[in-house]
Amino acid sequence: MYIILVYDVNVSRVGKVLKTARKYLNWVQNSVLEGELTEATFRALQIDLERIINKEEDSLLFYVLGNQKYAKRQLMGIQKGGEQWIY
Amino acid sequence: MYIILVYDVNVSRVGKVLKTARKYLNWVQNSVLEGELTEATFRALQIDLERIINKEEDSLLFYVLGNQKYAKRQLMGIQKGGEQWIY
Repeated sequence: MYIILVYDVNVSRVGKVLKTARKYLNWVQNSVLEGELTEATFRALQIDLERIINKEEDSLLFYVLGNQKYAKRQLMGIQKGGEQWIY
Repeated sequence: MYIILVYDVNVSRVGKVLKTARKYLNWVQNSVLEGELTEATFRALQIDLERIINKEEDSLLFYVLGNQKYAKRQLMGIQKGGEQWIY
């Protein structure tokens, strides 16, 4: 499965959330990560993030796609944050 | 086509970008909008946004999906910003 994660968390937890999410996903934009995960790895990512976030303050939005090819990414403007894009 | 838009723009342009994007898409999260568009309407949205953003400072990330059913949305934590979710 292909996962897109958009996070909106308290500034005090941004670093931890990003560090944890980057263990599993590629960082594509300030608050956006993406990657191909197995169901088990996706679950592990969720468990890791659940331990970090405050569920009453923070918000994580996951898009679960069957396959990366279902989504085409288009950028307008600059690439902000994130790593070099591989594709 | 189904569009997911994640924006990261200078605070001085957030209001304008959001207002414009909401003419075309549903607001699901602070900096995320989604919706079903025709190719022509997607182009119109892009033209409208190109007029607003500063391409050297702002960043708009579009995910273009063939169909909404290709992506399943999952939330962890609270729903921040956005409108009531319809589905």
